[in-house]
Amino acid sequence: MSGNTLGTLFAVTNFGESHGPAIGCVIDGCPPGMALSEADIQVELDRRRPGTSKYVTQRNEPDVVEILSGVYEGKTTGTPICLLIKNTDQRSKDYGDILNTFRPGHADYSYLQKYGIRDPRGGGRASARLTAPTVAAGAVARKWLKEKFGTTFRGCMTQVGDLAVGFESWEHVPNNPFFAPVADVSALEAYMDELRKGGDSCGARIRVTASGMPVGLGEPLFDKLDADIAFAMMGLNAVKGVEIGAGFASVTQRGSTHGDSLSPEGFKSNNAGGVLGGISTGQDLEVSIAIKPTSSILTPRESIDMAGQPTSVITKGRHDPCVGIRATPIAEALLALVVMEHALRHRAQCGDVVSPMRAINGSA
Amino acid sequence: MSGNTLGTLFAVTNFGESHGPAIGCVIDGCPPGMALSEADIQVELDRRRPGTSKYVTQRNEPDVVEILSGVYEGKTTGTPICLLIKNTDQRSKDYGDILNTFRPGHADYSYLQKYGIRDPRGGGRASARLTAPTVAAGAVARKWLKEKFGTTFRGCMTQVGDLAVGFESWEHVPNNPFFAPVADVSALEAYMDELRKGGDSCGARIRVTASGMPVGLGEPLFDKLDADIAFAMMGLNAVKGVEIGAGFASVTQRGSTHGDSLSPEGFKSNNAGGVLGGISTGQDLEVSIAIKPTSSILTPRESIDMAGQPTSVITKGRHDPCVGIRATPIAEALLALVVMEHALRHRAQCGDVVSPMRAINGSA
Amino acid sequence: MSGNTLGTLFAVTNFGESHGPAIGCVIDGCPPGMALSEADIQVELDRRRPGTSKYVTQRNEPDVVEILSGVYEGKTTGTPICLLIKNTDQRSKDYGDILNTFRPGHADYSYLQKYGIRDPRGGGRASARLTAPTVAAGAVARKWLKEKFGTTFRGCMTQVGDLAVGFESWEHVPNNPFFAPVADVSALEAYMDELRKGGDSCGARIRVTASGMPVGLGEPLFDKLDADIAFAMMGLNAVKGVEIGAGFASVTQRGSTHGDSLSPEGFKSNNAGGVLGGISTGQDLEVSIAIKPTSSILTPRESIDMAGQPTSVITKGRHDPCVGIRATPIAEALLALVVMEHALRHRAQCGDVVSPMRAINGSA
Amino acid sequence: MSGNTLGTLFAVTNFGESHGPAIGCVIDGCPPGMALSEADIQVELDRRRPGTSKYVTQRNEPDVVEILSGVYEGKTTGTPICLLIKNTDQRSKDYGDILNTFRPGHADYSYLQKYGIRDPRGGGRASARLTAPTVAAGAVARKWLKEKFGTTFRGCMTQVGDLAVGFESWEHVPNNPFFAPVADVSALEAYMDELRKGGDSCGARIRVTASGMPVGLGEPLFDKLDADIAFAMMGLNAVKGVEIGAGFASVTQRGSTHGDSLSPEGFKSNNAGGVLGGISTGQDLEVSIAIKPTSSILTPRESIDMAGQPTSVITKGRHDPCVGIRATPIAEALLALVVMEHALRHRAQCGDVVSPMRAINGSA
Repeated sequence: MSGNTLGTLFAVTNFGESHGPAIGCVIDGCPPGMALSEADIQVELDRRRPGTSKYVTQRNEPDVVEILSGVYEGKTTGTPICLLIKNTDQRSKDYGDILNTFRPGHADYSYLQKYGIRDPRGGGRASARLTAPTVAAGAVARKWLKEKFGTTFRGCMTQVGDLAVGFESWEHVPNNPFFAPVADVSALEAYMDELRKGGDSCGARIRVTASGMPVGLGEPLFDKLDADIAFAMMGLNAVKGVEIGAGFASVTQRGSTHGDSLSPEGFKSNNAGGVLGGISTGQDLEVSIAIKPTSSILTPRESIDMAGQPTSVITKGRHDPCVGIRATPIAEALLALVVMEHALRHRAQCGDVVSPMRAINGSA
Repeated sequence: MSGNTLGTLFAVTNFGESHGPAIGCVIDGCPPGMALSEADIQVELDRRRPGTSKYVTQRNEPDVVEILSGVYEGKTTGTPICLLIKNTDQRSKDYGDILNTFRPGHADYSYLQKYGIRDPRGGGRASARLTAPTVAAGAVARKWLKEKFGTTFRGCMTQVGDLAVGFESWEHVPNNPFFAPVADVSALEAYMDELRKGGDSCGARIRVTASGMPVGLGEPLFDKLDADIAFAMMGLNAVKGVEIGAGFASVTQRGSTHGDSLSPEGFKSNNAGGVLGGISTGQDLEVSIAIKPTSSILTPRESIDMAGQPTSVITKGRHDPCVGIRATPIAEALLALVVMEHALRHRAQCGDVVSPMRAINGSA
Repeated sequence: MSGNTLGTLFAVTNFGESHGPAIGCVIDGCPPGMALSEADIQVELDRRRPGTSKYVTQRNEPDVVEILSGVYEGKTTGTPICLLIKNTDQRSKDYGDILNTFRPGHADYSYLQKYGIRDPRGGGRASARLTAPTVAAGAVARKWLKEKFGTTFRGCMTQVGDLAVGFESWEHVPNNPFFAPVADVSALEAYMDELRKGGDSCGARIRVTASGMPVGLGEPLFDKLDADIAFAMMGLNAVKGVEIGAGFASVTQRGSTHGDSLSPEGFKSNNAGGVLGGISTGQDLEVSIAIKPTSSILTPRESIDMAGQPTSVITKGRHDPCVGIRATPIAEALLALVVMEHALRHRAQCGDVVSPMRAINGSA
Repeated sequence: MSGNTLGTLFAVTNFGESHGPAIGCVIDGCPPGMALSEADIQVELDRRRPGTSKYVTQRNEPDVVEILSGVYEGKTTGTPICLLIKNTDQRSKDYGDILNTFRPGHADYSYLQKYGIRDPRGGGRASARLTAPTVAAGAVARKWLKEKFGTTFRGCMTQVGDLAVGFESWEHVPNNPFFAPVADVSALEAYMDELRKGGDSCGARIRVTASGMPVGLGEPLFDKLDADIAFAMMGLNAVKGVEIGAGFASVTQRGSTHGDSLSPEGFKSNNAGGVLGGISTGQDLEVSIAIKPTSSILTPRESIDMAGQPTSVITKGRHDPCVGIRATPIAEALLALVVMEHALRHRAQCGDVVSPMRAINGSA
């Protein structure tokens, strides 16, 4: 109830602080008998890793994952999988001067109010560094879902600040530090350079999808698949908005357009984003998220100190001009974790048996 | 795990189908000793009730709530509160002709795929009728939060289809069937009339807020206050998008603008929407949701039948041209339920004691 | 978290008070597609019903169950099943004179201390009457488990006060009001008559078993099958002790005797009670519970009143001289609910597939 | 749901295997602001530690705990506390010869049936070694409960095999390896020596208590305090029976004796064991558990191999002749964890405020 576990049947309990000795997670509920190695997980951690381009925080962490339990002779045993990532670059001194003030846009104020305690080391528990164990857990979920259903997860940047990023091909995504689906990212580079020079930051919009989705995942009335996706995405650091399918565009759509027609070959559009009534239809899940601008900027901001007196705050240190840049693999991991949870929930109630209608229009 | 309970400490378990004998909910975890009567709940149900204007479904249900348990001599006892609403208007015949097809935009297809069973009576469990118990439970949460913290919840329509609805005053909201914060709703009426004539429907955007928020509610890393708000809102029928604070507008904001400055008098703006790091700051919660167009329309839609053969579907019967019209009191109730849950969670871990910093800038 | 739900995947939320308008439960998670009628449930409620002999409370309640939701055309739909039992015999006047005192052995004192509220009507929420919805929910679980695995549940009285009840045959159990597995219950009748004349009560010991158990149910480290059985049984009104298999007798056993040997034909004894390492072995579950004497007796007891002053208490009204008499069908229901929960949990993580070793020695 | 978390509000997630690189746990929900050091935890781990006498397993593990997160500058922050204990003595070779057989009384058979995987290294996840993180987490709970309410936990051995151990004084308990409350343990030593010589083992009975209990803890109908105690105790390795208060002795008690009388000075006896209606009364919690004989013995046992063929099994290696000897500090820890969970649950629903009746008879 203190909120550090994502999922119930595939439960990922996250622990650690940005500048403590280690961060990590415990996965409880992974099905037994799946081949799993540290390399399977490391590949996703490496996609998320900071320090990989000049546009993201220069914190130099190898982020090497260790499997402490739950795997025997290269296979999951069905018991808890503890994944540990040691913190190696803990330059706490960078944060010393902000101890006595509240940084606008940061969680300093709310954390102190809640717990009466302040851990100033790199944002402590509120740091985006804590998304690393989520990515690691997501890698385990992805592997199982791919082997079981052929489900795969992809994401890309669709907008950064005022700059819309068109979709050319998924193939370009791994070839640039922005996860942009375009061949030429020079405009993006120029945009980032300008922001950095100005000591400012900007927001971003990210798209994540799941393909090869099983039909029937999601538990109405409340634990709908789309509700849990929204929960997972809005819980990601800096996210301020979540859309499924047509999202906010559906406000101006007509019913005659929005509702996706069916044909014997399957659905003819995907305004639903792959979910109807909270249950997956077998179409691709389509999710879009809004990420706010980095709060740690060099531009001076008006604030108060611990005594409630007015002061000015500048956040030095290593910070991304756009936290959204690194969000793509994290959002993919979150989507995978939600789908994994619902795959197990569905199996609990409805069993492994494929429902009788599933073959009708080829969508499953 | 089958998804019919919202919340854990203030747990609302919803049951019933659109055309069964009754719908209702069981609230477990309500603090003892609060005065509670059926009238306290009925007032909110009446705000949500269908049949109150020509723009909403003409189903004529009184929606009278009965308290079956948990209240003794007018006070909550701390034991489960069962709220029952009998279904009185069950015109199942209206739905007979859709039994054999999948209605575009509806949950027919996904429900059948999941459960292998189809309850065609008014959408069965997928019906928006099931929001009535949620509104009833929300009334209980609202009462406790108001008495304990002075927290209040309000909502209004901000857009319907292409028509933006400006904000004039909260006072206008109860005076029109649209929950519009404007004095003159003739443009809205005309818009609705035209839609209805064309046999079509449109989407809407709704804003909900909480004022008088306690500071410190929300449980990071995962069960953040904003994450749970997104979960509750996206789980509401027809919702396709959720924003907190600046929402998707934060994509184009700069860090120097987005991060809300603090002064000795409090925060100077509210791009955060009342949540930082997943924890309430004491500012108003600001939430915006996108609601898709009603799927039940008179315009013929392309679909398939149960045998997978092409067919055309028209949904006759009593349907709102814009389901968003009635969403406001439901969204308020959901927000109240989320805040209630987090109020109890916070108390479990941190106690009733106000944190030492809370008085600093008057925001609590 | 307020403790009125048993189970998570097959979650039974109980509501109501002894003398309110109705009691009942909501079952969430029942697999879809199972034939279910009120008659399937009523048969178990009738076994538990008070007023069926002169040895049990003469409260005359028909305890008729109504299915309010979750069943369509005679089959479960996978949505919540609300079961309602109206209270028809609410002679609250019987309890008027005990309002101002604390009855020894009763929950008056602890409930008041916890909630600051006292519902004196027949024990309110603490009444054994609230086991009726549990029995009703158990009937649903029993039906599914029998159809799916052939699992069946039985129970009998093994001791009442100082009187040991030998085991002759399961066949006798339904033929006497004590659930005693003996042909001749005249000694039991004489024992009860004497107790009643003396205005006193006695305890009892009950045995419950499950046969045809699937192998592999139970979730170590904590949610072991035997741990959950102990939880369910100790939570039953008046239970003070729980044993699995050899139970307390294992204290004086030697390891060379206790550990059940295996042969190609299966286990050769059942000191384990069907559970090893918290996981079912396929042998019969064997559970034994101790039930304390009825607290409501005519013998005067020393106590205090609400002002803390000494007083004497006699509990008039209709009370069993041995609450254990009616416990058998309730304990069976609880055992079925625990097995059901673990059947679904097991399926979530390990799937419907039978594990490869299962056929080895015929125990599954 | 896969059963490796104990508690919900004070949630302890356990991970690791007997012979993996490390074992440990993550505590989520610890109240912030409590002073906590590794020394606070180590003292309890040292009480449990193997290798401290010739009567317990000679595995030589220092069991040094490391706090990886959740504590900053010596105080809990309210975020997850990860406790790590490295495995240093992993003599896996001892277990090589049992890989192909099922040891009577062990979990080999049921684990393999459930997961389809067998980790033969020291019992893998089923090893009693996994109680170490529970003891560590219990130390955190004990500290908070002592500081908040003055609640303390104690335990002792009351029987070993046929040998009843009388109660002389709590003072003797730390002075002998049996946790026996007697000054002279020579009879116990002789008993153990004889067992060991005979290559056999015996069971034990342990008593655990909590003093200084807050009134009002426990959540009926299902999550009763005694139900959760039974759950935690029955889940402990080798436990086959649990009693609260008079336990099985209540079967032969009369109602006139069993129900504890009240006087202005408090309860006059404690047959209830500190719980009425599932809620604590403020009296001492009194719990008794039965522990089966060690399954690993040198006496040959009849069994089958992985092919289902008959074979004989002897368990070599380092094993206690009575696993009950080391159970006392573990049972204390489990009792503390249950009380801690319920203290937080109670606070969630009823707040920190003391109930109005609490001062009446001095029991709180």
